[in-house]
Parts: sequence; structure tokens; C-alpha cells
Amino acid sequence: MDTTELTITNRDGVVTDLTAEVRRFCAERGDGLVHVFVPHATAGLALMEVGAHSDRDLVDALGWLLPRDDRYRHRHGSPGHGADHLLPALVAPSLSVPVLGGQPQLGTWQSVVLVDTNVDNPRRTVRLSFLAG
Amino acid sequence: MDTTELTITNRDGVVTDLTAEVRRFCAERGDGLVHVFVPHATAGLALMEVGAHSDRDLVDALGWLLPRDDRYRHRHGSPGHGADHLLPALVAPSLSVPVLGGQPQLGTWQSVVLVDTNVDNPRRTVRLSFLAG
Amino acid sequence: MDTTELTITNRDGVVTDLTAEVRRFCAERGDGLVHVFVPHATAGLALMEVGAHSDRDLVDALGWLLPRDDRYRHRHGSPGHGADHLLPALVAPSLSVPVLGGQPQLGTWQSVVLVDTNVDNPRRTVRLSFLAG
Repeated sequence: MDTTELTITNRDGVVTDLTAEVRRFCAERGDGLVHVFVPHATAGLALMEVGAHSDRDLVDALGWLLPRDDRYRHRHGSPGHGADHLLPALVAPSLSVPVLGGQPQLGTWQSVVLVDTNVDNPRRTVRLSFLAG
Repeated sequence: MDTTELTITNRDGVVTDLTAEVRRFCAERGDGLVHVFVPHATAGLALMEVGAHSDRDLVDALGWLLPRDDRYRHRHGSPGHGADHLLPALVAPSLSVPVLGGQPQLGTWQSVVLVDTNVDNPRRTVRLSFLAG
Repeated sequence: MDTTELTITNRDGVVTDLTAEVRRFCAERGDGLVHVFVPHATAGLALMEVGAHSDRDLVDALGWLLPRDDRYRHRHGSPGHGADHLLPALVAPSLSVPVLGGQPQLGTWQSVVLVDTNVDNPRRTVRLSFLAG
């Protein structure tokens, strides 16, 4: 299986666009499925529009779905840490996209994004794998 | 990779049952994984019971999880548009189901459904792909 | 396709750790993708930390995201049954993890868990499948 691990070090915020890296990984790999995976317990992956403030909207929405206060039993560091640990149950840490002729078949407004509310640790790894069809 | 694109044009509501199309696609394809993918930034896919009002319950639940009001930064058209763009972070646009002998191994009450709150655009495409095991 | 069905009979609560079974299934299977699937309409799968009370936090969070009261149209048995049927739209019933040399590439704090709020029926099946890369 063709697979590689990206290291994401310069995240600007909670949503990091990985689309360019995914496209690069798929180029010249033919037909199959590209699988994206994040091996962290406080991060997820989504296909969504970036820009037009959708990223900020997502941060807000996560804040009302999983409020960053002291209601959680899981605590160390900031109160939001308990919320961080529930994120992957809602925003799944694995997704996959069909690839034809080396091109991920993403819609016009779909970008592959890493969603990561744990801002204390900006270094993340993401594994890309290609399953030939 | 065996792959095809469905065009969904006559959707009755927010939840559209795709199970018959998925079963038809898998028939005579043997063992593997069927991958379902929606290339739209305001839609997701789920495995859930249809009928017994679960579809209406889901619409209601999405309304309290992602309220369709003017709280979003992403706006054009209706206020609910900002909510539409967050849907794919919660209801993922890719899923896959094991297939044995051409039969998707769905549970008795599981249907494959397209979840799409963006009622302004009733035309949707869904990509089905088969990965032989 | 290598595939097997687990029967989970002794669940202690809403979150059941499947990591040991997944690791056992992958051992000596080389490189590829392990796919985990739950054929039930009221259950989902997640990759999350177990222990440190995250499991109890998830139960609480599901309670405020999908309140277990009489607001649902889908009813038979307890009021929470309607909420159970919406769970799979948020906590997806399929996920997959890259495997290298027979080892699932899970992060240190990631466990594969079954999330199942329908405590009336403690017997569940989970299908594991391996796609060689």
C-alpha cells in the first residue's frame, strides 16, 4: 500500500486545509481510493468549504455542541480539554475519497480539512494511503 | 476500480434513501467494500433507519444542533445556508460497507441515506465505488 | 477479502473498547486498511481515548446533543429510543485505519470503540474486514 505521513506544523487555526497535499499524493497514482487518517485523540477530518468564514463558523458550532467549560470529567490543563477529547466522536478521524486518473473526485467546494481544537499542541501528523482499485 | 455516479434529481426531502441503488451496484460484484461518496459541501451520508419518522427526527435534530438562523458568518441566500455548510463536519460525506457475495452487509434496519438540508438545489450526485477484497 | 464478525455480549456501558480485537485481527495480515463496521441502526464507532472518564463524558454529551426525552416522532419503548436512532448520523457506523506490518497505525491515545446508547439490547455484532493494499 502506498502510504505517507504528513507533519503539519504551521496551523493558522482550528481548521487546516490539506487539499493540496492530498492532490499531490494522488497525482499519477491512477484509480482507487485515497484514505486520510489522523492518529490523534483530539482531532478529526472533514470535507468542507474553506474560506467564506465556514472555518470560523465551525469553531463556533463546536463551541455550542461541546462547550469548553468545566462540565467534563476528563480534565488536565484547560477546561476545554474534555471537549477536545469528544471531538473525534463527532468529526471522524478517517475519511476516504474516490480517485480517478490521479484526481481525487472532490466537489467544487469540498476541501479536505484537519479539525483540531487542541491549540496547545500545533504539531500534528496525518497519514495518507492509496488503495488501488 | 468499478465506479459509477448516480444523479439524484427527485428528492422528496432532506433524507433520500439510496439503499436500492447501492444494492444494485453491488450485485454480482463478489466480495469487497462498497464506498459511497457525495461530492457536495452541504450534504452528508448516514446509515440509519428510514421510515418510522426517523427522517423527520433527523431534520429536527439538525435544527437544534445547527440552528438555521443568522448566527453564521458564511451567508448568501437564506440564513440556513451557514448551517448547511457545517453539516458535512457532523454527517460525513463518505462511508463504506462490507460486501459479501454481492450483498452489502447492512443490518436489518440500516439504510444508506443522503442527508441534505440545502433544499434550494435538489439535484445531487453520489459516487459509488467497489473495492474488490 | 479477509473478514470476520465479532459478537459483543458483555458490554459494561455505552462505550465498549474493541482495540484488542482489532489488533488481533490485523496481526500477520501485512499492509492495508482495516475496516470496522457495525450493522445496527442505533450504534456507531469512534476512535477516542478510553479511560480518564472520556467514556462517561461522551454519554453526557450525547445526552445534551440528542436529549433522551419525548421530543421524537420515532417511539417504541423508552423515550430515548428516538435519540438512539439518530446516533448513527453523528457517530458513524463505519471507520477504517491504515495497517502497516500487521499493526493498526493508531495514535497513542486512540482506541477503537463501539458507541451504543441502546442499553436494552446488549448483544451486538461488529464486522472487521481487511483490504490488502
